[in-house]
Amino acid sequence: MKIKNVCILGAGTLGTRVALQSALSGYKVAVYDISPAALDNSKNIMEKIVRQLAKSSGLEAEAGLNAISGITFTDNPNVAVLDADIINESVLEDVKVKNQVWKLFGKIAPEKTIFTTNTSFLLPSMFADTSGHPAKFCALHFHDVFYAKVVDIMPHSGTDEKLIPVLMEFGKSLEQVPVLVKKENPGYIFNSMLMAFIGAAGKLLTGEVASIEDIDKSWMVNFRMPSGPFGILDTIGLDTAWHVTHKMPDKASQAFAALLKKYIDAGKLGEKTGEGFYTYPNPAYKAPGFLN
Amino acid sequence: MKIKNVCILGAGTLGTRVALQSALSGYKVAVYDISPAALDNSKNIMEKIVRQLAKSSGLEAEAGLNAISGITFTDNPNVAVLDADIINESVLEDVKVKNQVWKLFGKIAPEKTIFTTNTSFLLPSMFADTSGHPAKFCALHFHDVFYAKVVDIMPHSGTDEKLIPVLMEFGKSLEQVPVLVKKENPGYIFNSMLMAFIGAAGKLLTGEVASIEDIDKSWMVNFRMPSGPFGILDTIGLDTAWHVTHKMPDKASQAFAALLKKYIDAGKLGEKTGEGFYTYPNPAYKAPGFLN
Repeated sequence: MKIKNVCILGAGTLGTRVALQSALSGYKVAVYDISPAALDNSKNIMEKIVRQLAKSSGLEAEAGLNAISGITFTDNPNVAVLDADIINESVLEDVKVKNQVWKLFGKIAPEKTIFTTNTSFLLPSMFADTSGHPAKFCALHFHDVFYAKVVDIMPHSGTDEKLIPVLMEFGKSLEQVPVLVKKENPGYIFNSMLMAFIGAAGKLLTGEVASIEDIDKSWMVNFRMPSGPFGILDTIGLDTAWHVTHKMPDKASQAFAALLKKYIDAGKLGEKTGEGFYTYPNPAYKAPGFLN
Repeated sequence: MKIKNVCILGAGTLGTRVALQSALSGYKVAVYDISPAALDNSKNIMEKIVRQLAKSSGLEAEAGLNAISGITFTDNPNVAVLDADIINESVLEDVKVKNQVWKLFGKIAPEKTIFTTNTSFLLPSMFADTSGHPAKFCALHFHDVFYAKVVDIMPHSGTDEKLIPVLMEFGKSLEQVPVLVKKENPGYIFNSMLMAFIGAAGKLLTGEVASIEDIDKSWMVNFRMPSGPFGILDTIGLDTAWHVTHKMPDKASQAFAALLKKYIDAGKLGEKTGEGFYTYPNPAYKAPGFLN
């Protein structure tokens, strides 16, 4: 089958970015959200991203703005899903909310539609049956779309295997590197590794083995990376990291979750609140001389 | 105290590099090894590194070769340790061998000498008493010296705290980023995080969640790194990784250790044997198009 029409559910950060890239890649795109304000905001953010891409990559601003003007922004589910070849859902990361959305869109979508969820921490099997089309249901998980260009394709046990190559091609057409998560795995591929190394960093800190700065320095110098685990945590958000960490039963994870909670309770969620392990906008780890 | 004279024990890969950097930084250097052939080889490797540095960095080849000509290469312990302000030991990663060496050098070193071990996996407390000078004994662990320019300073519980700033300064003078490991920790700082993320990658592979290539792609794209966990494992050596992994009691580590053992038994140790998870000299992950 050939995908032409893309329906994005949820006009938040990720939905906005997937919708924009779909439009830039030549798809006919509709963005649905219950909130008209969110839809307005989504369009504004798209225009900002296009202007940034015009500076940083070869994108022509006019072509980008044209692509945006072709997108349907709507709070009407029937308009959004009309003729959709694929739905990619990025609504609130809440099982109840996602199930409500899938119950509705499973009913009103055309027969041909492929159903995909962009969930970060939940699993497709939690919504597949609710959609009423479990064989056509799969996770299609984007990271950042424009910076980290990778997309996870993660079927649940009832997903029709024929969907996989279609989604691989779709991912490539959006300029992403598609990777196959052969069975359901919380954290897909990258997040599993990310949280493992960040957990090890947390263990070094709570175990008083080394300082925040020295742990970051070790990572940055050895891997020639622009930030270490605590700089990365500030970018991810300490609240997001806590949601994953506090569910892990081992002692080290619990100690680290407790430390994260202290920062969170003090309003220190990372870059977005101006303070986390470092203070922003000029964190120490980005200062010249940090590695001297 | 001011360090002027550096004594390196063991003319292997790391000893050779620490000795060369010490000479380039203006120290008077002696390299000791029981094997005259190893000493000859060490000098040849130093000359190769200098020629590479002359191409890749600002080093003048002649100045580098002059620095090498000032190094004393000797199989005579008394000559090596004569007037040494600091010893850095990089002999075989074996408790028995290291204790033999420290027993000898602890006796013949001058009163002023600081004793440091470059051990990768063992702990300074295993040799501190044998040296006869536990308060002056500390781990001083280099990574690669010329690429990964970080040095771990890891005291044992009996190390005199006054040693720390001296070793920090010494590390900086060798153009390394010094980091303090406040108490003994196997794997120091970086290796703890490295093995955690590599263990997570191993779990994804043995759990049949994703392929070697897709796991590496996820890491490479998200972190914009030139290799992923299995490419990195091929560089480290699967045998080295197995030595760490097989000692971890959890099920996932045991499964990954068993997989590593299969590769090792088949002679696939990684880049050094021409094959590991990838084949060399042109591994798939370095081919153009791997991330398409």
